[in-house]
Amino acid sequence: MCRWLAYSGTPILLRDALYSPAHSLIDQSLHSRLGAETTNGDGFGLGWYGAGTDPAIFRSTHPAWNDGNLREVAGHVTSPLFFAHIRASSGTAVQRTNCHPFRHGNVLWMHNGLINDLSAVKRDLVLDVDPSLFPYIEGQTDSEVLFFLALTLGLEEDPPAAVSGAIGLVEAAGRRRGVANVFQGTIATTDGERIWVFRYSSEGRTRSLFVTAEVPTLRRMYPQLALLDALSDGTRLVVSEPLGDLPGAWQELPESSYAVISSADVAIRPFSPPRTPRRQRPAYLAGSVPA
Amino acid sequence: MCRWLAYSGTPILLRDALYSPAHSLIDQSLHSRLGAETTNGDGFGLGWYGAGTDPAIFRSTHPAWNDGNLREVAGHVTSPLFFAHIRASSGTAVQRTNCHPFRHGNVLWMHNGLINDLSAVKRDLVLDVDPSLFPYIEGQTDSEVLFFLALTLGLEEDPPAAVSGAIGLVEAAGRRRGVANVFQGTIATTDGERIWVFRYSSEGRTRSLFVTAEVPTLRRMYPQLALLDALSDGTRLVVSEPLGDLPGAWQELPESSYAVISSADVAIRPFSPPRTPRRQRPAYLAGSVPA
Amino acid sequence: MCRWLAYSGTPILLRDALYSPAHSLIDQSLHSRLGAETTNGDGFGLGWYGAGTDPAIFRSTHPAWNDGNLREVAGHVTSPLFFAHIRASSGTAVQRTNCHPFRHGNVLWMHNGLINDLSAVKRDLVLDVDPSLFPYIEGQTDSEVLFFLALTLGLEEDPPAAVSGAIGLVEAAGRRRGVANVFQGTIATTDGERIWVFRYSSEGRTRSLFVTAEVPTLRRMYPQLALLDALSDGTRLVVSEPLGDLPGAWQELPESSYAVISSADVAIRPFSPPRTPRRQRPAYLAGSVPA
Amino acid sequence: MCRWLAYSGTPILLRDALYSPAHSLIDQSLHSRLGAETTNGDGFGLGWYGAGTDPAIFRSTHPAWNDGNLREVAGHVTSPLFFAHIRASSGTAVQRTNCHPFRHGNVLWMHNGLINDLSAVKRDLVLDVDPSLFPYIEGQTDSEVLFFLALTLGLEEDPPAAVSGAIGLVEAAGRRRGVANVFQGTIATTDGERIWVFRYSSEGRTRSLFVTAEVPTLRRMYPQLALLDALSDGTRLVVSEPLGDLPGAWQELPESSYAVISSADVAIRPFSPPRTPRRQRPAYLAGSVPA
Repeated sequence: MCRWLAYSGTPILLRDALYSPAHSLIDQSLHSRLGAETTNGDGFGLGWYGAGTDPAIFRSTHPAWNDGNLREVAGHVTSPLFFAHIRASSGTAVQRTNCHPFRHGNVLWMHNGLINDLSAVKRDLVLDVDPSLFPYIEGQTDSEVLFFLALTLGLEEDPPAAVSGAIGLVEAAGRRRGVANVFQGTIATTDGERIWVFRYSSEGRTRSLFVTAEVPTLRRMYPQLALLDALSDGTRLVVSEPLGDLPGAWQELPESSYAVISSADVAIRPFSPPRTPRRQRPAYLAGSVPA
Repeated sequence: MCRWLAYSGTPILLRDALYSPAHSLIDQSLHSRLGAETTNGDGFGLGWYGAGTDPAIFRSTHPAWNDGNLREVAGHVTSPLFFAHIRASSGTAVQRTNCHPFRHGNVLWMHNGLINDLSAVKRDLVLDVDPSLFPYIEGQTDSEVLFFLALTLGLEEDPPAAVSGAIGLVEAAGRRRGVANVFQGTIATTDGERIWVFRYSSEGRTRSLFVTAEVPTLRRMYPQLALLDALSDGTRLVVSEPLGDLPGAWQELPESSYAVISSADVAIRPFSPPRTPRRQRPAYLAGSVPA
Repeated sequence: MCRWLAYSGTPILLRDALYSPAHSLIDQSLHSRLGAETTNGDGFGLGWYGAGTDPAIFRSTHPAWNDGNLREVAGHVTSPLFFAHIRASSGTAVQRTNCHPFRHGNVLWMHNGLINDLSAVKRDLVLDVDPSLFPYIEGQTDSEVLFFLALTLGLEEDPPAAVSGAIGLVEAAGRRRGVANVFQGTIATTDGERIWVFRYSSEGRTRSLFVTAEVPTLRRMYPQLALLDALSDGTRLVVSEPLGDLPGAWQELPESSYAVISSADVAIRPFSPPRTPRRQRPAYLAGSVPA
Repeated sequence: MCRWLAYSGTPILLRDALYSPAHSLIDQSLHSRLGAETTNGDGFGLGWYGAGTDPAIFRSTHPAWNDGNLREVAGHVTSPLFFAHIRASSGTAVQRTNCHPFRHGNVLWMHNGLINDLSAVKRDLVLDVDPSLFPYIEGQTDSEVLFFLALTLGLEEDPPAAVSGAIGLVEAAGRRRGVANVFQGTIATTDGERIWVFRYSSEGRTRSLFVTAEVPTLRRMYPQLALLDALSDGTRLVVSEPLGDLPGAWQELPESSYAVISSADVAIRPFSPPRTPRRQRPAYLAGSVPA
């Protein structure tokens, strides 16, 4: 059910984060160590900020490990903020519109997890999406519907509230349709400046999520790692499964929490969806449609 | 906006209908002569009845003219009833789940045309799909939503009534949302025994649709064509654009009509969608879900 | 380095051999149990005899486990003799022309293994291919070059002699270029009537190869398996890795041997390539080009 | 038989050259105006210099007009020197390794045209490729073999001499094998600093090739075109078919000529391949292998 990586900091060649580390994300597409599925070969996606007015998304239906174009793009594009995702389908088709990250305007979104018994709740959830946003849904996945619920609830203004509300809608639909433990997953979203990451499941047993320790701390722990000298103090990597084997380099995010990652710091806070979420767009967004 | 072909009669190698004729459907994928788009290179699909309990569908995102697997399958599969479709996207993604024919249980469906201003009416139409059928929608196209509206209204029991009702729902949504001339197209559907084809547009100016003359008639007109001797009297080919250049071989279906094609005969009847279509599944179908 | 399956006997739906068994070939594309690579996700191929004058080949660059078209074709085509192959690339591109089986005229060929240090010997081997056959080489793999060497040496007339001679040429090139243990692998080839399978490596430590016991024997061992009643006595399945977990159902082919499988029986014989192989087409083939 | 574009000058978003102009290269993939084939839908490729130590190549088997990833990459990558190519196959497979541009070390290469009766001369030409370069050939095309012949003859040192010698080898093989008018085409190659383009055919009737007039001249002719103000004086675009409809903007390269395009100027010179080309790598290159 997927793995992902989010990077923020000193602009680097995407390859240096995706291919170079021991136990890299690309390695995980073939053989991952954590999680139920050890192969994540049902497509992949990259999203990055750089040239152009909105973020780029590059997505393919081939496995990441053997995709020549991914290798080329990752080897020739630098970015200060990018997302990467490798997919293990939980049943929906292997097609670009089902690959993460998803994009709307300036926002990117990706998810590792699932909505249980999606067919039982999907119609309810699609109806909860604001009608002005409905035409922008392109694929079939639970992850994209969740994205559009969050956009409906103000993702572009207040990500923690919108994600919380969106998962609240999923849990309400689950209760209505008799689906136990309906939501499970880790989520990352960004506006190109900050990254918000979430770890939550209805059951309280969410798959893993890790963020790197501060670069100055890493430099003290691993003075021999020259690459750390090239990174700004605020550089951070968030991953669903640690890369490499450096003790102390990775901090696990607690169950039912979220983090806001900026160039200044990482703030970790508790996360719990409301039991009676609102259904409409906030008044200050009513009528507006993100481009 | 696509081209298609439907065949019913003596079992033949698919290749003989798809590749062999002058101005074949495969040729039309590169250069067609009728219609606005001369290139239909945004994917293709085959559906056929034969071995197996339900019809097969083989669909790809590559142009038909250069697809090696299509050539192989068409050259090694025989069938007494098959559909073929080449796509020119009107905007939605080039992915298998957007390629025709669509299948549900034992039924196939394909369409050449479009719903105007789809984003204005799509949500209404999706809500009109029976909730028990909603989870089976896989792609993004107008054509597939129309298929599910027809399934909602009893396509498996009474195709002319169901297609008429489905287009009626589209036209009602068009009126509600201010979309002029909302429907345009030719449609083919089959249950593996009979084929129903429809030619209709809200504007009354529908793209073309042709059916072959009776085989005995063709034999009298073209005694030198040995291939006709191998075909049963009831063999028929329906196409959006004629193959070959045999005068008298093709009968055009009139505007606002449909035809029922069986091994016995072709019956042509007038077609006009109801102005106030019903929205629910017929009582005799309520609760049932086609497999 | 791939896995493969070859079937000969009572015509069956391909799906029954490819998808249905426990630990099926499709399962092995995601997770195999024997061999160095546990994922075989770099494309796949099917070859079958049936309608049409030559065998069909259906090949794709996607993993077998998630390919919708493979599922459709396998679920709707029956054949009395077919090959299936799942690929783990040893470095060459993931493209259809590198997927097995390979076809020439009426002959199919597939291989699980490799030529060591291919770049050191490939030019020599390509020069050993008969000039009249050279234009038919389509891809980049060691396996296809080996096929064309075997065709050069009379594969269509005497498969054991031709395969032996072809591997002899590879080993001669290896000695010339200083490549140790140059050949490794199992091979299957067929003319649509009989299947020849080979197990050999220069080092004498070849990956595994298994053939099913005789159907009458299996019926005595497993009287509860109704499916066996539907199969002719001469039905055989050859695989690089056993399907299912039926003790006694699989016989391992010995190191350095080959088998000829016909509807009558399975004959197993020793196999050793000549140290000084000939380079030309046999006199009786000179000038002839397989279609 | 393809269309291509080469750009050198002020760094721009690739999209501005590929998608924005009237009658853009992407439009030409669907409908071109010059040349025998009006559809160039058999794959495409981009090559660009920028981040990374060597040029990037991004190639796909889908038509350029409907490829979402091409749109993303072109919309988010800037470069001072790039190549783009849309393919109409003359028979070889639609696969990435047959798409242009081809790359070797720091050099890019693309071609619009063909070697007549390739199967008659290909083996001879492959044998003329330096054995140290042979393992780097990945695809099946005439264009790639020509590239490797040129690399064999010193393309990295003296492009006009190497291209001339390579075509000389093709013409020699054509004479030897009885193939008339064996070579036809336009070629572009670059080392990341300068671009060399060639227009030549054995018959003396080569498909078209155009280069933009000097930017200062264009500014005087079209003072209303603001975009010209953003371009350096030395910016140049070379195309197989003119974009847009600006009279005087495009200069046609004469038959049997080549041009060297640098930031300083465009030098046009006559081009004629030698009748007795040499076969070996120049002495100063012997033993060296481009990385």
